[in-house]
Amino acid sequence: MSFHSMWAELSPVGRSSATGGYRRFAWSGADADCRAWFREQAETRGLAYETDRNGNQWAWLGDPAAGDAVVTGSHLDSVPDGGAFDGPLGVVSAFAALDELRHRGARFAKPLGIVNFGDEEGARFGLACVGSRLTAGHLTAEQARRLTDGDGVTLPRAMAAAGYDPDAIGPDPERLDRIGAFVELHVEQGRALDLSGDPVGIASAIWPHGRWRFDFRGEANHAGTTRLTDRHDPMLPYAQTVLAARREAEHAGAVATFGKVAVEPNGVNAVPSLVRGWLDSRAAEPETLDAVVGGIERAARAHAEAHGVDLTVARESFTPVVEFDHALRDELTRILGTGTDLRVPVLGTGAGHDAGILSGRVPTAMLFVRNPTGVSHSPAESATEDDCTAGVLALADVLEGLACP
Amino acid sequence: MSFHSMWAELSPVGRSSATGGYRRFAWSGADADCRAWFREQAETRGLAYETDRNGNQWAWLGDPAAGDAVVTGSHLDSVPDGGAFDGPLGVVSAFAALDELRHRGARFAKPLGIVNFGDEEGARFGLACVGSRLTAGHLTAEQARRLTDGDGVTLPRAMAAAGYDPDAIGPDPERLDRIGAFVELHVEQGRALDLSGDPVGIASAIWPHGRWRFDFRGEANHAGTTRLTDRHDPMLPYAQTVLAARREAEHAGAVATFGKVAVEPNGVNAVPSLVRGWLDSRAAEPETLDAVVGGIERAARAHAEAHGVDLTVARESFTPVVEFDHALRDELTRILGTGTDLRVPVLGTGAGHDAGILSGRVPTAMLFVRNPTGVSHSPAESATEDDCTAGVLALADVLEGLACP
Repeated sequence: MSFHSMWAELSPVGRSSATGGYRRFAWSGADADCRAWFREQAETRGLAYETDRNGNQWAWLGDPAAGDAVVTGSHLDSVPDGGAFDGPLGVVSAFAALDELRHRGARFAKPLGIVNFGDEEGARFGLACVGSRLTAGHLTAEQARRLTDGDGVTLPRAMAAAGYDPDAIGPDPERLDRIGAFVELHVEQGRALDLSGDPVGIASAIWPHGRWRFDFRGEANHAGTTRLTDRHDPMLPYAQTVLAARREAEHAGAVATFGKVAVEPNGVNAVPSLVRGWLDSRAAEPETLDAVVGGIERAARAHAEAHGVDLTVARESFTPVVEFDHALRDELTRILGTGTDLRVPVLGTGAGHDAGILSGRVPTAMLFVRNPTGVSHSPAESATEDDCTAGVLALADVLEGLACP
Repeated sequence: MSFHSMWAELSPVGRSSATGGYRRFAWSGADADCRAWFREQAETRGLAYETDRNGNQWAWLGDPAAGDAVVTGSHLDSVPDGGAFDGPLGVVSAFAALDELRHRGARFAKPLGIVNFGDEEGARFGLACVGSRLTAGHLTAEQARRLTDGDGVTLPRAMAAAGYDPDAIGPDPERLDRIGAFVELHVEQGRALDLSGDPVGIASAIWPHGRWRFDFRGEANHAGTTRLTDRHDPMLPYAQTVLAARREAEHAGAVATFGKVAVEPNGVNAVPSLVRGWLDSRAAEPETLDAVVGGIERAARAHAEAHGVDLTVARESFTPVVEFDHALRDELTRILGTGTDLRVPVLGTGAGHDAGILSGRVPTAMLFVRNPTGVSHSPAESATEDDCTAGVLALADVLEGLACP
């Protein structure tokens, strides 16, 4: 089955007709359809299919017990109203690269694995990369069992409803010990390749990044009758903090975003009692990130105090800088630079990935495919067919170089 | 039954143990309990009880068909997590004032009515004063039948589930023609009486007020990888508009509030595609309100344009200034100024009321009872027992002056 046919098969799954965006949330019906598709691709190719204790899907050519396996893959779930490429491009390209290598008559000296990590986006339970975090031991089973979605459904209930065993979740060191190299192909989520004019790039590092929850608590009141001077309106310091975040990030060459807000009571004629805003911030250097978030928090405290509003700031997650394995990165540069005209730049990224989670345990690398607008986490996310093909061929070259020496 | 006992009976109905606030939404179980309480109060006092075609409850002393009736009352429903006084104080005080007049041996020359208007707050269906609007013909039955709550339940279904006939709703001019004067007592929703040091005041006018929806449409994108310069983030012009609203209102001596927000996709790691904010604004003069809202809209457009964000502004509702009947207002001032030390200031208000809706059809007046903090639409809303008693006595004096000449 060609890249094109695989892509066409996946295209309608979990797509909203209203927005054109994808809603493939962990353990949902759309997620089950994606998983059935993965299993079918594995079985059609005669690969050994299995799910691990955390619900990640694996397809094996050769026996992984032999060790030093070469693994590629990504994820199939999406953010709310996400694009088609973030995740699926890496999984579809993995199967297409295997087809290409079989077509070339490649002889594999090492086991080759294709993986679909579960719940990478964290759209449902608020924590990203749950499947790889559990496997790598970065998230304990106890912590994962406490995760709850917006409807009050816990992760164990959601897993069980999808036919998986939530009692089995936990670290999986034996599985990781068998992997000699993990390579994740992903659509670029910025415009670096577009600006440099290259279809494919290699990741150098993932910027340190985190999420902080800002709770501004004021006093609910009647919007028509309460004098401005008598108000403790948390919307005002929230608005000032949104603008401070932009200023701090601009000044530091970082990014800072308030993309999620919850308001109580959220009534048109009520001064809010609570405005809760989530800050996402990332920077190339940890010191820069500290300075940006520190600056935003100081501004928020000053503005909250000026309005008689209480502020609490909680760090909900934090991922330190990830430097991908230098030897593997150099090996990819060597493989992709041999006998081709392809120029393959090495670039950093602000996005988290399962590859970033695994990199502490397994030599890990990433390939990026050009995204002409840089738009991501949106239905407008895109990559040209030519660039997707270039990505598949680059991935095939890399897998051949690593597994067929 | 004393004011105190009536208050104690109503106190637990529809109260959230989590917040201490009231959730007495139209046609809900809590609303039914409030209605049963009203009926019992009417019947205990030997009043003729009836509900009108729009589900408003009436209790009559004397035959309303005689005409020139004097009516008092308010509403028993609440905003989400509202206070105990907004609405119920007027209904409880009405029964207590009748008890006081009977105790005085008053002889009524006109029919006296006590009313509980349904769905004053609009907490469930998004439109305030549905009961009085229908009765006065300001809202057609067709418009009302299209109202839908947050769970997709229509007003007719909700009314039917509560045992009322939604096919009967509509204007009720004969009923209004029988009313010679309507006086609504209400807790003040600001601090004017607290600042002037008076327990009771008389309303002069309800400020013109309206709701405007601001839709800022940008471009969804990845919060980690999209350069600041490539973003069209609608949260930024929204934040600037919140601050502009405060500035414009401050400058004009008006009020302007963004109390309700909806964000899409509302993900922590996504630049939003849409930020929708609702503006509530009110001012003493229509020209002032126009200037404030115009200034906010101009600022919003300029900021949206600077960020490459589309903006649409829609006026969702508007209520022109309501000047209460001058003759009735002067009559109240005369009655309350005679033979007492009570100083009764006349003051405007930014809040809408059933009295405001009726004022176009019936001579209407309002009494306000001091609210020591001015807090309203919140569990912290309050009035002292002494001030509640002063309110009951003032209302009794007014009803006696109007109905027992």
